[in-house]
Parts: sequence; C-alpha cells; structure tokens
Amino acid sequence: MTPGKKLGGLVAATVTPMTPDGQINLSVISQYVDYLVSKQNVKNVFVNGTTGEGLSLNVQERKQLAEEWLCQGKDKLDHVIIHVGALSLAESQELARHAAAVGATGIAVLAPFFFKPTNKAELIAFLQKVASEAPAVPFYYYHIPPLTAVKIRVEELLDGITEQIPTFRGVKFSDTDLLDLAQCINKNEREQFTFLYGVDEQLLSALAIGADGAVGSTYNYLGQKTNLMLQAFAKPDLALARKYQFLTGEFLNFVTKLGFGVAQTKAVMTFVSGIPMGPPRLPLVDASEEFIIKAKAKLESIVWPDSD
Amino acid sequence: MTPGKKLGGLVAATVTPMTPDGQINLSVISQYVDYLVSKQNVKNVFVNGTTGEGLSLNVQERKQLAEEWLCQGKDKLDHVIIHVGALSLAESQELARHAAAVGATGIAVLAPFFFKPTNKAELIAFLQKVASEAPAVPFYYYHIPPLTAVKIRVEELLDGITEQIPTFRGVKFSDTDLLDLAQCINKNEREQFTFLYGVDEQLLSALAIGADGAVGSTYNYLGQKTNLMLQAFAKPDLALARKYQFLTGEFLNFVTKLGFGVAQTKAVMTFVSGIPMGPPRLPLVDASEEFIIKAKAKLESIVWPDSD
Amino acid sequence: MTPGKKLGGLVAATVTPMTPDGQINLSVISQYVDYLVSKQNVKNVFVNGTTGEGLSLNVQERKQLAEEWLCQGKDKLDHVIIHVGALSLAESQELARHAAAVGATGIAVLAPFFFKPTNKAELIAFLQKVASEAPAVPFYYYHIPPLTAVKIRVEELLDGITEQIPTFRGVKFSDTDLLDLAQCINKNEREQFTFLYGVDEQLLSALAIGADGAVGSTYNYLGQKTNLMLQAFAKPDLALARKYQFLTGEFLNFVTKLGFGVAQTKAVMTFVSGIPMGPPRLPLVDASEEFIIKAKAKLESIVWPDSD
Amino acid sequence: MTPGKKLGGLVAATVTPMTPDGQINLSVISQYVDYLVSKQNVKNVFVNGTTGEGLSLNVQERKQLAEEWLCQGKDKLDHVIIHVGALSLAESQELARHAAAVGATGIAVLAPFFFKPTNKAELIAFLQKVASEAPAVPFYYYHIPPLTAVKIRVEELLDGITEQIPTFRGVKFSDTDLLDLAQCINKNEREQFTFLYGVDEQLLSALAIGADGAVGSTYNYLGQKTNLMLQAFAKPDLALARKYQFLTGEFLNFVTKLGFGVAQTKAVMTFVSGIPMGPPRLPLVDASEEFIIKAKAKLESIVWPDSD
Repeated sequence: MTPGKKLGGLVAATVTPMTPDGQINLSVISQYVDYLVSKQNVKNVFVNGTTGEGLSLNVQERKQLAEEWLCQGKDKLDHVIIHVGALSLAESQELARHAAAVGATGIAVLAPFFFKPTNKAELIAFLQKVASEAPAVPFYYYHIPPLTAVKIRVEELLDGITEQIPTFRGVKFSDTDLLDLAQCINKNEREQFTFLYGVDEQLLSALAIGADGAVGSTYNYLGQKTNLMLQAFAKPDLALARKYQFLTGEFLNFVTKLGFGVAQTKAVMTFVSGIPMGPPRLPLVDASEEFIIKAKAKLESIVWPDSD
Repeated sequence: MTPGKKLGGLVAATVTPMTPDGQINLSVISQYVDYLVSKQNVKNVFVNGTTGEGLSLNVQERKQLAEEWLCQGKDKLDHVIIHVGALSLAESQELARHAAAVGATGIAVLAPFFFKPTNKAELIAFLQKVASEAPAVPFYYYHIPPLTAVKIRVEELLDGITEQIPTFRGVKFSDTDLLDLAQCINKNEREQFTFLYGVDEQLLSALAIGADGAVGSTYNYLGQKTNLMLQAFAKPDLALARKYQFLTGEFLNFVTKLGFGVAQTKAVMTFVSGIPMGPPRLPLVDASEEFIIKAKAKLESIVWPDSD
Repeated sequence: MTPGKKLGGLVAATVTPMTPDGQINLSVISQYVDYLVSKQNVKNVFVNGTTGEGLSLNVQERKQLAEEWLCQGKDKLDHVIIHVGALSLAESQELARHAAAVGATGIAVLAPFFFKPTNKAELIAFLQKVASEAPAVPFYYYHIPPLTAVKIRVEELLDGITEQIPTFRGVKFSDTDLLDLAQCINKNEREQFTFLYGVDEQLLSALAIGADGAVGSTYNYLGQKTNLMLQAFAKPDLALARKYQFLTGEFLNFVTKLGFGVAQTKAVMTFVSGIPMGPPRLPLVDASEEFIIKAKAKLESIVWPDSD
Repeated sequence: MTPGKKLGGLVAATVTPMTPDGQINLSVISQYVDYLVSKQNVKNVFVNGTTGEGLSLNVQERKQLAEEWLCQGKDKLDHVIIHVGALSLAESQELARHAAAVGATGIAVLAPFFFKPTNKAELIAFLQKVASEAPAVPFYYYHIPPLTAVKIRVEELLDGITEQIPTFRGVKFSDTDLLDLAQCINKNEREQFTFLYGVDEQLLSALAIGADGAVGSTYNYLGQKTNLMLQAFAKPDLALARKYQFLTGEFLNFVTKLGFGVAQTKAVMTFVSGIPMGPPRLPLVDASEEFIIKAKAKLESIVWPDSD
C-alpha cells in the first residue's frame, strides 16, 4: 500500500472468490490484484462489503480474506479498506482489531440494520465502539440506506464526528440523496474527509457536486472505462464524460432488467477477467447461463468513445 | 407566449394565490407574472401542479387559474404549461380540452395514484386518453414517484411513445433515479424531447448528465440565482455552479428540517416577492410564524457569489 | 331505508356498473339492489368507495350514482352510505351536501392522500369541513392506509371527535392493525360508534375482538355465506365460523395470485349475479378471459358447510 | 424438557440478561426459568430470537446462552427452542449443530435479510441447509416480515416442505397478514404442524382462526394473564377473552407511544420479575427512567378481570 496517499479516484468493491463447492478461494486473490491494477487501472479495494458478501461470511472467513488482500496487495495497491460492519458489535470490534493487526489502510462500517439506530447518537455510539478498536486506522462510514433502511442523514452525522471518532476520514455514500452528499461536501473541509460515491450508474452526477471518487462493483470490470470518464470530467469535457456514463448506464440498465445482483456481478467479473469467481453464498444463487450469455453480448456490443 | 420557442431553462412551478379565507385569488397573478419575469428572470410557468395545489382544487378553479395565467402571461411569458392530471380520467380530459381552448403552450399529466397503473401499457393508455383531447398541444409526462408511488421507468415509457401520443414532447422528471433520466436523455433524440428536472436541490447533478432545464417551486424565489448557476454550468465553470447549488441546498436543507412543503413555499414566496400568496388548502395548514422568521433569516444570511 | 336502525352486519361495497363503452350504467342498479337483498341477504351498501371507483369518477357521475342508489334502495335497503371523499375539499363538500339532499343514511370520507395530513389535527380539520356540510347525516371515517398511506391511528382520532364532528358515528376500518381496532372498540362506548371491518379475508379475526360488522367488496357475491359465518360466530360456533372464513380466504387467496382488484371484482360479480357490471375506468383495465374462467371454476369448486 | 409433548400454548421470547457493563449474564437464568414457571405459568421458551438480541450477540455468546437455558430448563420447562438464524449460513449451521448437541427441543430460523431470498426456492434452500445440520431436532420457520422485509407467503412455503425439510414442525408467525396464517392452518394438517402467533397485541384474532398458541416477549411478564385469556377463549367465553386482550393491548398501546422495543422490554421484565435483565446491546440503548416510571404506573393501574 501507499502510506499517506489520500484515498480518491476509483475503489473496486471486490467480490469474494469462491470454489465451486462454496468455500472461499484465497488462491486467486493474487491474480485478482494484478488484474485490477494492470487491466482496470484500479489500485484501491473495498473488501468484505456488500459485493464481497461480507455479511454472508463468518468471522474466520472475513479475517482470512482481509489478510490475503492485504498480503497480496502489499506493494501493488494504494488502499485496502476492510469492511468490518456486522450486526453484532462484538464481532465488528473483533474484525476491526484484526484489520488493524494485519495492516488495513482503512476500515468501514455500515449501520446495524436488524435493530436500527433511530438517531444520530445511537448510530455514532455504535460506530465509535468499532472505530476505537482500531485507533490508528482511518475509519469510513458506509452509508447504504437502500439495504440498511437506516436513513440518518450523513451531513448531520458529520457535525462534531471527529470528537467522538478521531479516526473518521470519510464516507462511502451509496444513496441517491445528492442533497445530503452535497451538504457533506460543502460543509466539511474537503481536504479533510473523503466522499466516495457508491451508486455507479450515476457517478457523474456525484462528481458534478464534488465527490472525490467512487467505490463500486462495476469498477472491477469497467474501471478502465470509468477512469476515462474521470479524466474527461477533470478537463472538463462533460460531453465525453457523459458518453462514458451513458454507456455504463446502458449496460447496468440492461442487466438490471435481467435481474442483477452480487451473483451476477461475480459471473460478469469471471467472464471479463478470466478469473473464476465462483458461486455466491445462499440466499444468493448462481447467475443463470442465459444471463451470462446476454450480459456478455451486451457488454461486447458497446462501442466506447476510445475504441478506435 | 413565444410560439415555437423550445422549452428549456427554468420553469417556475407556481403556487396558487389564495385570499385569507381560502378562495383562489386571481387578482395577483398579473403581478406574479411581472415578478417572475423582472426579478427572477423566469419566463416559463407550470400551473396547477403539486406546488399549485392542483389536486386540491376543483375543476372550475383549475380552469379559472389556467385562464388567468394564460391571459396575464400572453406577451410576457414564453411557456405556460397547465397541469391537467387528475384521478378521474374524465376530469383530466375536461381540463385538457379547456387548456387547449385557452391557449396553453403545453399540458402535463401525472400518473393516477389511487388506483395505480401497474405497467407501461396501462399508464400510456391513461395518458393517451388525456393527450388526445388536446391534439395540438405539446404533452409532457409529469413523473413524480415520491408522491404517486408509480415507479414505471420513464426510459421504458419513451419507447414508441409518439406512436400513441403524437403530441408527446418531454418529461418533468421529479425523482432521484438519475440512471433512468440519463437513459432517457441518451436514447431519445435530445432535440426532440425536453427533459426538465424537478428535484431542485440536486439540479446540478441532472445538468451534468444533460437535463435541458428544470421545473420547480424554488425558481419562484431563487430563479435568478439558479439562472446564474445555469450560466456557470454552461461555461463550464463547475466550481462556481457548485457554489450556487450548495447555497440553494443549504437553504432547502435548513427549511426541510423545520418542515417544508407547499404551505411553507407560499409563505417564503410571500415574504420574498411581497405578493400575498395566502394560506394553502386543507389538508395543508399555514406555515407557522416561527417558520417564517427562521426561513427569512436563513435566506437573508446567505452570501451569494455574485453579491459583491 | 330504515331510519334509526343501527348500522351493523354486512355492508356491500358496491361496484359501479358501466356500459361497454365506459359510461356509468344507472339502469341496472335497481336489479343490483334486488340481487343483494334477495340473493345475498345484504341490506346495506357503501357507494362510490374504492370498489365503486369513486375517485375515478367525476363529480357529476358520483352524484348521479348516489341519487340512483338512494332512489332504488328506498324501501328495500337499510343503509345507503355515500362515500364523498375527494382530494379536493371543495369537491368533497359539494358531494356531502348532495348526499344529504338526496337522503343518504350516512356519508364516509377517506383521508386525503396526495398531500397527506401528518397528524390528527390536520386530518380532523379536513374531515370536519366535510361533515359539517351534512349536519344531519351520520358521518363515518374511512380508514384505509394501504391505499392512502395515512397511518394516523384511529384510536387517537376518536378522542374527543364528537366535539369537532358531532355527526361522527363510526369507522370503516380497512387495515390489519387489529390493536388499533381493538382499542377503538374498547375505549369508545360501543353502543355509540360502529366499527365495520374492511379486510374481508380476515373478518373473523375482527369479529373476535368485537367488530360490529363489515364493509367489503366480497359481500356483493359472498354475502350470504358470510352471513352464515356471522351467525356461527354469534352462537358461538367458532369451528363452523372458521370453515366459512377458510373458504372465502381460499377463494381470495387464489384470485389474489391471479391479480385481483376492482376490475376483477366487477367480472366476478357479473358472472355470479348475472348483472353486467361492465369494464372499469382507466387506469384499471378489464379482467382477462383467463381470469374469469379460473375464478369461476374456483368459486364453483368450493364445498360450503351448508351445501348439503 | 418434556419429550414428545406437542408445542403449543404460550412460549416466552426470552430477553438476554446482561451485566451492567454489557456482558451476557448467565447467572440469573436459573432464576428466570423459575420465575416463568412459577409466576407466569409459562413452560416454553424461545431463546436468542429478536427479543433475546440473538443477532446482536456473537456465536460464542449464543452458544453459551443456549447451553445455559437447556441446562437450567432441563426438568422444569417443556420446550426450549433455540433461534439459530444468522446472516451467514455457515454461522447458522454451526449454531444448529450446537443446539442439537446440547439438547434443544427445537430450532428456529428467520429469513436472511441483508441479501434477501426473492422466492420460495431460495428461502427453502437456505432453511434446508440449516435444518439438515440438526436432523433430529424439530425445525420452525420464524416469519417476521416487519423486521426482515422478506414477504414470501408462508402458505406457499408449506407446500411440500417436509420433502425438503423433514424436521419441519411449524412456524412462529409474526405478521398481521391473517389470511396467510389462516390458509396455513387450513391447508396443513393441524395435528402435524404448529402455528404460534407472534404479534402479542392481537393474539385473540389469531386464536379465532385456529392458531395453536403464541411466542412473544410479553409472556415474560403477562404470561399468567394471557393464559387466562387462552382459558376464556377455550370455553369459549369470548367476552372475557376480549377483556384480557383489550387490557394487554392497552398497556402495549401506551408503551408503544413512549417508544417500546427490546430495551424497554428488558426494563419492564426487570421491574416486574425483580430479576436484573440489564442493558441491551448497541445499537439499542437503555430504557429511560421516565419510561420505567410511566410503564410501571400503567401496568399497575390495570384492573384485571380476575383481580378480585
């Protein structure tokens, strides 16, 4: 990893490779790292998150995966952020300590979502108890109300957060409430916190209001194209940036209609990268052959602006 | 109005002025028109929509309002779009015929939302029956799932829509699903249809993906500032555009926490413009004095980039 | 009608008969009345409600229907309750005055649901303005949160309600929150208010906690069977009552999986009664032939306890 | 436990006692068992469920609790059902094996709810993988859509379920969809499966359609009163049964308005039983002193039918 380098740009929300019989497959992670760096130009990863089926794994598996990503990514990746959120605070704390011990460059936690915090104080209390177990590791809040149904506004959360969580460094913001995101960006010193957007299909809209980058599953296989979008935006060449966003959106729109989730992301990543990502864990079930054929055809049919 | 001028830029979703005892107050509409044009630089209006409490009025009132706006706006406004949506198709049709008769430059219809269309065919069938009553008037679909709970994707709706609704010209898109909006913009010839964004607090994000403009309640009193944002975006000077968006967002964020709806919009518009907009109709109730004091102080405290 | 007779037992939520081209068909209402009384032993009706597509009709149609039901039901029915709820308070008031003028034995109003009352005071204010237009007519609140999304608890609403709405007489309670219903029944003098349950498939559960009767669409065609359930419950012969509930539930469960709404109810009522109820209004669309065949076969296959 | 005794009547969903510093407090479980048996006449428990904060505990804690309840309940309780549901299938399986090893009379599993099964096959697949780890232990599905948002109908789930889950014995049904419950009861041989209702405040309504009993948190402290309701219902003396239901409903209605959840249940159980149940785990926070004072006063103010 690259100590001190500010987190930004693209972060791949990695899938968790599994063997055909459903065990975690650590053996391909080295290859996975190389693929991300060399083919997608993505040097940051978010491990054991939603895409990584973190909450479907047991504690031991999550530790093994964290360790392997940190080991394999050592001199190749800039940031390896380990998601340590869990319904059980005790488990989350155990994972935080472990992530710190094995050298994570950041940890992230989502809001507990069986019993849900009903206000800022309850959520901060939970997050604080996790963050304090890894006092030297940057802490990121993983805001994903479509899955947690915890809708406490992030901009409220930020007020005074470093007093309670000194390691707080930013947010993975996976929601379409861009007023909230904009207020976060506006009211907090941008140089201090990092706001990474997590709704891949509308990243350009988040960039427009100042997001620092993105965390998402599509950057596993569309990272290189999205990097070109980021470059176009930086110029700014909005027309070109829009073309990239329209095309990734067209793919996502297409697969969404076929039924698109983590299982399907693993299948797409398998055929794009050639690395076998294996089946998902129950209650998810494997992508159908029909899905794979159609998704592959769609992806290959896209004519990118840089394709000449 | 300005025949042939393509709809775009800012459209004020007008409030419906009422007398203190709750009757519609046609007498101030002339003044309202002048205010929008001269102070806010807004020359398009959307009448009898959500902000206009269209669904809280009876048919006769809606007709009177439509007539007055068209009369007063005649040589001053570019576009007067009349919202004619209603739960009763018969009423909606009656309103469409009337709007055509009095010279509306466009009509708009939201999805019926007591009984809800469950697929594209049912929604199109309803819209078609209304549009066909005004065969020479541009037709706009008013997409507002947060209020109707009708979530049929607009990009699907657009496929082949002009075969069934030849007068179809565009969408007032009041939702945060920007993938849907982006696909609309991308797949349809932009020169043909107009996509106006309706979530004021994140307009910049919609502009980034190519929205043609905006319809919203804030353009009644922040139209001039938002026009400056549009100019900055057009340059493009994104940093400046962002400042305007942050500031309007800051105001909206502030009032939202106080409780912000159409009643409060009427109160804000009253103190900003000096035109008495009166109380809302039940079930809405008047803004509190406390709200007015706080909202006014907040609005006046904002330091705009152009304020020197 | 039967003046002074307390409302109770079964109330048919009537469908609105229409001609094949979609006009209201007043000519069959006389026959409809006779059918309900003679074949279903149902002597109370709820007109222009959800099942009656009241909100899809215009004001004139609603008046004509109210008048016809009151005229035809005069010496045959006990209660003709006219639903006068509308999004526009002015329209609702107009309908209330009309219902009073034509002799309704009761009026009912649902919560406005585009702009939604956010607390008891706002809801009561709206209801009061309608009820006071018909000061001699019993007033019923029509509680149907699955459609209005207005979830203000009824037991709270009842506290002091007669001070503001002296004509208040009860509730059509169409929700599965039976704690709320039970508290209504418990805390209010039952002899004063009437609580009619509106979720037909679980009526027995509401009777168990003291509901006075039911309003629903199934009593159009399963009124006679449900009356036998009521008799069994009154004995009490719970095992027998349960058999009836299981069988009506079996039918409703079956048709629900096929897609069951007002359009389908009209189709079922047509084949059961022989009275042509016609198509629904858009956005509803006619029941399919396949639905009719399957629903008919299912209904005819049921072996009722009294069928020997 | 009492081998072979069919599960029915009341089952207390136990809270998990904790020390003031938040560790599980196994030392009071013996006392807890005695209290339930002697004071509440409740001889069945549901351990590590929602009320037991099962999903907020780590695996080791859940095992310790299961073991202690089984040990202390050995000759005193009829049924000790261990909830072994978890987001991670692997963890759930581990807990199932453990529950079998320590002699649970039943295990229960809720639907996974981060990734959610989208149809019957996916849900059954998950449940089957857990149940098969404890092939000699009765298996219960814990249906609680208000918390899991998994709304797959139980009556569909039951079709052919014993072919895939031979140990399937019944359902803890925590939902207000009584049509679904009624169809479950009706279509399945009641002597085979057990349907326990989990919405305490409307238990009487579930009994009316044939529920075998109830699992709930209120039976910790209102078990004796609810047993009297069950007796009244069995006679049947519906008027008396209703009185009990109204009174428990009145208490629950009262505390719900104060904010009522697992933390508050622990507080109520503490003051009623005298056994210190301790604080909850984050994200839940301790009941306020104000809540405790008000809840206590309310509970003591209730005049029960048998109180003379």
